[in-house]
Amino acid sequence: MPWLNGRLLAAGEAWIDPADRGFTLGDGLFETIRVRDGAAVWLDRHLARLAEGCAVLGIPARFGDAVLAEACAAVIAAEGIGAGALRLTVSRGAGPRGVLPPATPTPTILVAGHAGLPPQSPVTLVVARGTCRNQASPLSRVKSLNYLDAVLARREAAERGADDAVMLNTAGRVAETTIANLFARIDGNWATPPVAEGALPGIMRAEVLVRLGAVEQPIPVAELQRADALLLTNALSIRAAARLEDKVLSAETEAAAGLRRELGLPA
Amino acid sequence: MPWLNGRLLAAGEAWIDPADRGFTLGDGLFETIRVRDGAAVWLDRHLARLAEGCAVLGIPARFGDAVLAEACAAVIAAEGIGAGALRLTVSRGAGPRGVLPPATPTPTILVAGHAGLPPQSPVTLVVARGTCRNQASPLSRVKSLNYLDAVLARREAAERGADDAVMLNTAGRVAETTIANLFARIDGNWATPPVAEGALPGIMRAEVLVRLGAVEQPIPVAELQRADALLLTNALSIRAAARLEDKVLSAETEAAAGLRRELGLPA
Repeated sequence: MPWLNGRLLAAGEAWIDPADRGFTLGDGLFETIRVRDGAAVWLDRHLARLAEGCAVLGIPARFGDAVLAEACAAVIAAEGIGAGALRLTVSRGAGPRGVLPPATPTPTILVAGHAGLPPQSPVTLVVARGTCRNQASPLSRVKSLNYLDAVLARREAAERGADDAVMLNTAGRVAETTIANLFARIDGNWATPPVAEGALPGIMRAEVLVRLGAVEQPIPVAELQRADALLLTNALSIRAAARLEDKVLSAETEAAAGLRRELGLPA
Repeated sequence: MPWLNGRLLAAGEAWIDPADRGFTLGDGLFETIRVRDGAAVWLDRHLARLAEGCAVLGIPARFGDAVLAEACAAVIAAEGIGAGALRLTVSRGAGPRGVLPPATPTPTILVAGHAGLPPQSPVTLVVARGTCRNQASPLSRVKSLNYLDAVLARREAAERGADDAVMLNTAGRVAETTIANLFARIDGNWATPPVAEGALPGIMRAEVLVRLGAVEQPIPVAELQRADALLLTNALSIRAAARLEDKVLSAETEAAAGLRRELGLPA
């Protein structure tokens, strides 16, 4: 039962206008929010990041944070989600033909619930060859609906027999994977790319950065290949990498499991 | 009256599934097709380009070209469009949560009609500072639903009092504008950026390239600033630029008007 523009609807009753700029231009943003014990986790941080993204795109707030929090709670309750995820999508709403946004848009706000969390098991990785992230675009720092480069890289990973793909930026340095921030242990120290390198400012990333005692530093692909362990983080999971291309990594099962325990993720 | 997935519908009866990957991820493509005298112009070329884009994204064909041509004709007839535009949108269709596409997607195909063409009058331009096109991504060469960089640049143009913005690539060379390919007259010769520079392979661009006797060559922004005339082309218009930032250009009203006459666009 999704919540759309102010109302909780039965599945099959929620529909998007074909002129919605989310559909026609990818003109919007989203948040993936973990649900734990029937409650949204770090909701205030997700709503703050969403507001920052809306400011970058110039999308006005249609509802206050209190209403969005009620919407999340309503979807969790209606679907009876204990552990799972919410996706909160904001688009600029319907508009006439063309790229220029309407002067006074009516954004579309959708909250959809998904029971269950993804696996927390180690993943295999390749480095995407087919595309890269553009760290010079502000879009690399907001969670926009323009996700096609990640889709291309994820398809490439599947074709090459891997679970996920590391995406480089246009300078050939590590940005993130198609769905996660990346931490690399190099010479015994944990490092993660700065946001300016094309990494999304993940909320789980900020938590793990502190807990690992990691440093933010640019990671050229040659440095990545020297790493002996990698951790991948997003709102729903903390996973170690078992392999990067042909290189077997120290899976760091204990480190990942320890972080998951601290942060309330499944073992 | 849009045509959606095989049927012509009354306005207000066409709706998109909120789980459509076009809406959630911008996972799709579109074509903007001119209508002249009640017929789609260069439809075969648009359908060929769409098929190339679908191959890049791995979106299977749901309907053959004959059905798509019938859909275009049906929308034109139902809306009584003499001169105007069709927008043919293809998304990968609905999918579960996550980036990886379904193994056997059912694409969404939408044809929407718009009466009337945009003005053909000279435009004022700025060079976008806030974002750029990523020529290293295959997305720069297909007309995908990931249009947010153009939206940002178009907003910047409006804020700076201009009609449109020139978008550079990550190397600081000209790619195109937010809605058009660009031809620059430099030292008396017409040039346009190669597709590899981040320019969409426009169908009008290919026509004008031949008719102007232009050459494809990379155009650093410093070269652009030396141009004494600029022409902007897309499926719906051929327009001269009256101004680039503070520089007044030779509006080339005659050249633009001559091309429009040859190609059946309004005077």
